[in-house]
Amino acid sequence: MMSEEASSAPTFDAVFRAKFLELLAWRRDVREFRTDPIPVGMFERLVEVACLAPSVGLSQPWRFVLVNDVGRREAVRRSFEICNQEALECQRGERAMLYARLKLAGLNQAPVQFAVYADQETEQGHLLGRKTMPETLMYSAVAAVQTMWLAAQIEGLGLGWVSIISPDAVNAALQVPESWRFVGYFCLGYPQHPDDVPALQRAGWEHRHNSSEFITRR
Amino acid sequence: MMSEEASSAPTFDAVFRAKFLELLAWRRDVREFRTDPIPVGMFERLVEVACLAPSVGLSQPWRFVLVNDVGRREAVRRSFEICNQEALECQRGERAMLYARLKLAGLNQAPVQFAVYADQETEQGHLLGRKTMPETLMYSAVAAVQTMWLAAQIEGLGLGWVSIISPDAVNAALQVPESWRFVGYFCLGYPQHPDDVPALQRAGWEHRHNSSEFITRR
Repeated sequence: MMSEEASSAPTFDAVFRAKFLELLAWRRDVREFRTDPIPVGMFERLVEVACLAPSVGLSQPWRFVLVNDVGRREAVRRSFEICNQEALECQRGERAMLYARLKLAGLNQAPVQFAVYADQETEQGHLLGRKTMPETLMYSAVAAVQTMWLAAQIEGLGLGWVSIISPDAVNAALQVPESWRFVGYFCLGYPQHPDDVPALQRAGWEHRHNSSEFITRR
Repeated sequence: MMSEEASSAPTFDAVFRAKFLELLAWRRDVREFRTDPIPVGMFERLVEVACLAPSVGLSQPWRFVLVNDVGRREAVRRSFEICNQEALECQRGERAMLYARLKLAGLNQAPVQFAVYADQETEQGHLLGRKTMPETLMYSAVAAVQTMWLAAQIEGLGLGWVSIISPDAVNAALQVPESWRFVGYFCLGYPQHPDDVPALQRAGWEHRHNSSEFITRR
């Protein structure tokens, strides 16, 4: 019985494995977008793929809010600018100068913009798994985002996560239900400069550390 | 300049796209593991791949705590059992009977077990991007988990996320720094029954909804 089931499971060869690693290596947090539109129906297809992500109790709490209204986009951009200015004021000396030069969001160019929320009161999943750790609802939405990020990269599209922003300001601009918790605001489009090195590393802000540093044994 | 850079970026063909969708479709939250070990060095390689996930300000706040000590594993299992019993008592009628029959963790069989934390005080990233939304540190760790989940699936390995658990109990069992925030406890090993349908769906607990339900326009 087991071997029969197991035999129907797909296997992944060395070619796929290598290509998957390439996908991860070239997935960037994109801040410089071309302004040309993405294909019709693409956003919906990416959401469909994202919905294959794991979710606590199969609750699928993720909510994608596509923002096309110019006024709402402007309100979001204003919140980013205010928060980014405040963040700059917290940096000191050379770090502050470096910070001021960083491009941290593609809100002026990205053709597609959307917010991701987690519905904290969804009945889907019948509360399973989220009693002790309700934050798993937000974590499920993040798993969907990372899945969508990879799916977008396969299509040559880049995604940028804007977190320097006031959730209250975004909520007010988008008028979503009160039970929805803001997870992030995203820019989507074709990247101006595909790269396999993170933008913050290229700018000298930070570099990736060796993965062995992140493992502890108990 | 741009086209030169763009031309060095890898493209992904229809074969890879189809295989990637298969990978997502067969990625399960596994609760039934075989007890045979995973290859030596595999865990470390999966963590290395996970570290290609996006992180706020390139902070890489994820911390992987590999748990081999029998006593610590037992403390974690005890916490799951207590929390699972409490969760059962919150379910009513037929749902309670169905809940009692679900297998919700592979803590007795999984050869590899680890906790994932987010270091809320890491200096890496120099605080960039996390001032307004400090929860992005935990979200970064979740993006790493989802990346690792897919990398494991490519190797034929299954991952199970245990969220029915007390973070305080796990923290006490694993004695981690106070600045580390618990994200989840994970079981890793070869799945007994690979499947492309979620276990909770097979058990009649919940089913996946159409992705169009999760899109709102503003």
